[in-house]
Formats: sequence, C-alpha cells, structure tokens
Amino acid sequence: MAMEHVLHMKGGVGETSYANNSSLQRKVIMEVKTLLEENMVSMMSNKSVKGCWKIADLGCSSGPNTLLCISNIMNIIHKINTKLNNGKSIFQIYLNDLFENDFSTIFKLLPDFYQLEKEKNDAECFINVTPGNFYGRLFPNNYIDFFHSSYCLHWLSQAPKILVKNGEPLNKGNIYLSKTSPPSVYEAYFKQFERDFQYFLKLRFKELALDGTMALTFIGTESHDKIISVQGVLGMVLNEMVQEGLVEENKLDMFNFPTYHPTEEEVRQVIEREGSFTLQIIKTFKMEWDANLQKDNVNYVVDRKMRGEFISKYHRAVFEPLLIAAFGENIMDVLFSRFAKLLTQLIEFETLEYTNIVLFLTKDS
Amino acid sequence: MAMEHVLHMKGGVGETSYANNSSLQRKVIMEVKTLLEENMVSMMSNKSVKGCWKIADLGCSSGPNTLLCISNIMNIIHKINTKLNNGKSIFQIYLNDLFENDFSTIFKLLPDFYQLEKEKNDAECFINVTPGNFYGRLFPNNYIDFFHSSYCLHWLSQAPKILVKNGEPLNKGNIYLSKTSPPSVYEAYFKQFERDFQYFLKLRFKELALDGTMALTFIGTESHDKIISVQGVLGMVLNEMVQEGLVEENKLDMFNFPTYHPTEEEVRQVIEREGSFTLQIIKTFKMEWDANLQKDNVNYVVDRKMRGEFISKYHRAVFEPLLIAAFGENIMDVLFSRFAKLLTQLIEFETLEYTNIVLFLTKDS
Repeated sequence: MAMEHVLHMKGGVGETSYANNSSLQRKVIMEVKTLLEENMVSMMSNKSVKGCWKIADLGCSSGPNTLLCISNIMNIIHKINTKLNNGKSIFQIYLNDLFENDFSTIFKLLPDFYQLEKEKNDAECFINVTPGNFYGRLFPNNYIDFFHSSYCLHWLSQAPKILVKNGEPLNKGNIYLSKTSPPSVYEAYFKQFERDFQYFLKLRFKELALDGTMALTFIGTESHDKIISVQGVLGMVLNEMVQEGLVEENKLDMFNFPTYHPTEEEVRQVIEREGSFTLQIIKTFKMEWDANLQKDNVNYVVDRKMRGEFISKYHRAVFEPLLIAAFGENIMDVLFSRFAKLLTQLIEFETLEYTNIVLFLTKDS
Repeated sequence: MAMEHVLHMKGGVGETSYANNSSLQRKVIMEVKTLLEENMVSMMSNKSVKGCWKIADLGCSSGPNTLLCISNIMNIIHKINTKLNNGKSIFQIYLNDLFENDFSTIFKLLPDFYQLEKEKNDAECFINVTPGNFYGRLFPNNYIDFFHSSYCLHWLSQAPKILVKNGEPLNKGNIYLSKTSPPSVYEAYFKQFERDFQYFLKLRFKELALDGTMALTFIGTESHDKIISVQGVLGMVLNEMVQEGLVEENKLDMFNFPTYHPTEEEVRQVIEREGSFTLQIIKTFKMEWDANLQKDNVNYVVDRKMRGEFISKYHRAVFEPLLIAAFGENIMDVLFSRFAKLLTQLIEFETLEYTNIVLFLTKDS
C-alpha cells in the first residue's frame, strides 16, 4: 500500500484520536510562536503584499492545533502589516495534508473559528484546504507568501530500501536506526532524507513568492549514536513480541519506519547543496517526551507509570494507522500497553527527549 | 438548528448516498456542458489571465459529479487558452460547499483524477476546497475568473417566515408553495429568494475578476400555479401521515421547505434590479424527474413502479438530512416508500418534469 494511504494521524475527536492527543505538538507550536514573533518582522521588511497574504500550512493534521497554528501566524503578520501601514490584513489560508487526513474535524471547527477571528482583529481570512502530498506540487509558481510546517518533515516520502546480505536484512530486529544498525543502514536512511528534503525545497522554491519566508519545525537529533528514539523503543517491544510468537518475524524484518531525525549539521548541508534558499535562522530546542503532561498536572504527583502511559497514548494517535498497515490491528492494544510499560522503566535511567529543529528560510529577490 | 448544519447531500458512497444517486444531476451537468462549449469562447474573448485560471464551483456536493463538472470546465477553457496562444493552461480549482458536506469522498477520488487529467491535457491543475456558505464571502476581491454552480441556487439561505393568522399558519397542510397556498405565502417565498439571490450576486461580483464569467444552473418553474413540484408531492404524503397519526400535525405546520423555484422572468427581474452583472444568456430546458432512468435502462421495459421508486430514491439522497432534522429519522423509510407509491400513481396522469434555468453572467470591464 502506498505510504500516503496509511500515513495519517488518527482521525475523529474520540479518546484515542490525534485531535485529543496532540498536546506535545501544541507545546512545540507555542515555542515556535515566540521565535516567529522575534524574527518575522526583520525577515518581512522587504515583503510587499498587494491585497491578500497567501499562507500555507503543510501537514496541518486535524484538530485544534491546526487552527491554533494559523491563528498565531495571522496575528503576527497582522501586527507587521499594521505597522507597515499596508491597510487591512487579508489572508488566504491553505491547509495541506494527505488525502486521507481527517479534514472534516477541521471543517466542523471553522464556523466558531471565523467568529473568534472576526472579534479579535480587523482582518479578513478565507480558509481553504489543499489535499495532497507535499513531496509533490501543491500550488502555482510564485504563489505562497509564507509556508509553515510543524512536525512533518521528519516523515520521509517512503521507507528507505534497506539492503539484504546473505538473505538477512541488514537492519534485522530493528524498525529504525539503532545502536546495532550497521553504517549502510544509516546511509540508506540519510540518502532517503536527503533526496526527500532536497526535492521538498525545490518544489517550495517554485511555489514561494519573491521575498517569501518558510518556517519549518521537525524532529532532529543531537547525534545518531547516543540517542534513544521512540521508534527504537517501539522496536524493542516488537522484538519481544516476535520472541513470544505474537508478531511474525518476517513482518518485523520487512518494516522500516519511514521517518528520519537529522542532525542540525545534516540539515545545513542539504540546504546548502540544494542552493535555492537563504538559511536565515536555524535553532534547536529540546523537549521531554512528556513535557506537556507535567505542565497539565502541576498540582498532582505524576508517577513514572502515568508518564509512560501518557507518552504511549499520544504516540499511538500518531503511529497507529501506519503500524496497523504493517502488523495488523489486533496487536495494537498489547503493543502500546507494553510500550507504556517499557517507557515507565526507561524513564528511570534515560533522558527521553526530542531535539526539535526550527528553520527560517527566505527566497530573496 | 441552523440551516447549514442540516442542509447537505447524504454522505459516503453507500447504496443510498448522494454519490450513488445523482445521475439526474449528472445529466444536467452534461446538458450545460454543451451550452458552455457554445458560449464560453465569445464571452472569454476579452479575458486575459496571467499564469493561472481560478475557477470555483459553488455547492460542489460530493461524489463523481463534482469532478466531472470541473473536468468539463477545464477542458473547455484549455481549448480556448490554446487557441488564444496563452501558453500552458494552469488551473487553481476551488470546490465549495457547506462545512458539513462530505468532502472526504471527493478527496479519495483525487489521486486518480489527477492521474487522468495529466494523461489527457498538457495542463496543470491544483485542487482546493473552500468550505463555507455561499450566502457569505468565500474569496478575496477580484479573485475568481470563472464561477460555476449547478443545482444549488434554488436552495434558500433559510425557509421564509410564513405568517400565522388566528393561530393557524397560512400555509397549513403544505410544506412548500401549492395550489392552495394564499398569495401571502407566495410573496414570503419570493421575498426570501429575492433577498438571497441579490445578496449572492453582490458577493460574487466582489469576488469575480474583471471580465470574469459566472455560469449558474438551478431549478426554476414555468409558472407558479400549474406546476406540480417534488416538494408538493412530499407534502401530500406527510399530510396523509398526519391523518394517520404517524407525524405530528404541529411539525408539518412548522416546516417550510427552504427552496424556491423562480420563473425565468423573476430571475431576470432580480438580476436587473441588483444591477452589477450583464446577463449574457438565459435559457431553460426541461427534464423529466426520471430522465436518467429511461436512458440507463434502454433495453429494459421500465414500468411505473420502477420509475416511482427511482425518483423517490434519488430525492431521498438530497432531502433526507433536512427531513430528518424536521420529522425525525424513524419515519424516513415509510415517508419515502409512500412517496414512491404516490409518484407511481401520478406518473400516469401528470407530466413530472423539472424546468432548469441556465444563466451566463459577466462582470464587464
């Protein structure tokens, strides 16, 4: 099955939906908001927009985060626009995600969103949806003034082709890069990321208007050999389930997680080699896997078990459709309950955190 | 409940869905295609589009008709564009319908649609969705080059407020205009249509680019006193069900169908009074309520029972969400099976046909 049919957050607004399990992504959006506020003014000083700002959010997913993101961006640009005496701010928003994304949950939130925005700013906004794969063209040339993407570009267009040696897959027993992966596996992953990210940059350069800006946030890593990853922990659980006969060994061997967490240096390298954009800012910030649980529960004692379960639950909302396609629906409950348990143990002696990379790129005139 | 929450075609792709019961609407689209082919060239001779044609389909509904419509329009404009040596045709398509419309059925058809379009023409197209009520703003000023709307504008923004006299509603026993309705009921309906259609024209005039064109098709009528309407027949069935205690009389009295089928003269009148647009063409064509059944079944003997059931079934896909909100879900099966039965009887001695009105309007420079 093609990646774009299985890669989507869990739809709806139920207990296990992405809409209800995306508070970490919300925290990331709010961190990036501060960076946007600090840096957009200077990057936009050359920008002249006649009539209407065209803003696209790539990989918008579904639920309240989608609109939070857009609202933040409109507020910031509205302030800049007012300062520059450009007249009334008018926005055309394009929310993009894959064809199978649950857009209808967003549509149901729109009437209230329009009402709120109307009360807040003297600005007009027109919201559109552009379904499709961002590793392909989405807009005409020189069209979008501001591209935004949060927590998407660590997803590859497809899993890398991992080599097989003497009938054994080189990354046997793993579903992602791990400490035991040979260099050729790392290479296959990096090549896939490089190809995808370069292609993404080429496409967006065509679609971005002159003096346009692109703000991208995704999960990176400090280094490839020390860091423990969510995919690594999931791999351990799946391995254990293979040993117990709950998962077919062949399925585990064939599955490679279609994500890559690059280092800051790798990102710089790809941008420079591709050559279209000016890299204005690159920053990293760390965030514990359960950063938002602690904040949400400031008055409660949060024990390790709660933390493990929390991390497991929100990752399930992100990964489940993909894992169902690879391993079948019936092992999901066991997989994620064991995942929670293993996390509970790991929390004791490992620092479980994401390294987030934020980029500001401009298409200079 | 607000109209826009209950007014949508029946979603999904099941046996009773709109996607599977819209062959009459398809026939209308194909009739209008011929008119578009005959008239677009002359209307577009002044039109200069730099880069990208922006086309909006208002009330696009859901299912294969949505994309058929868009495909027809792109083919016609592509031919004109090639003739005028305007270079490669590039289209940005905006599919509009209410927030509750089943857009996800369209999204699932898009990958194949893109593939087919790619093979057919040397043209590029980018498809977007713009959810919202077309009795409100949807696009920035001077933005859209071509507006299209098929089988939507007979829907009012709300049912007219029908007067009550001595505690009795003036349109008692009816759910729409009927032979027994007093003039004040006709007036209330016409006023609502006039207000809505005028407002629609004002909004679209702002959004249409200079030398842009608007092609509108909707259900009209030859006259208000002779013609039998679908709503009228449904009203008879509901009346019968009130007599038998299956429907509360109060519910029938309170319900007024939020549609209006204007005469050609009324349409001309509203356009002239509103004054923004140049009416280039106005045409009417008739179509039997089961026009498409006869065509689909050219080798079979089609009896009256089949015809009645066919008409009932596809109207159910259109009206059911609205009627459920008014009368509850549990009477739907009985309502539509009696509707089919009554249609079977009426077919014998009445001409059951729609009068379709097609308009071409331009915003002249």
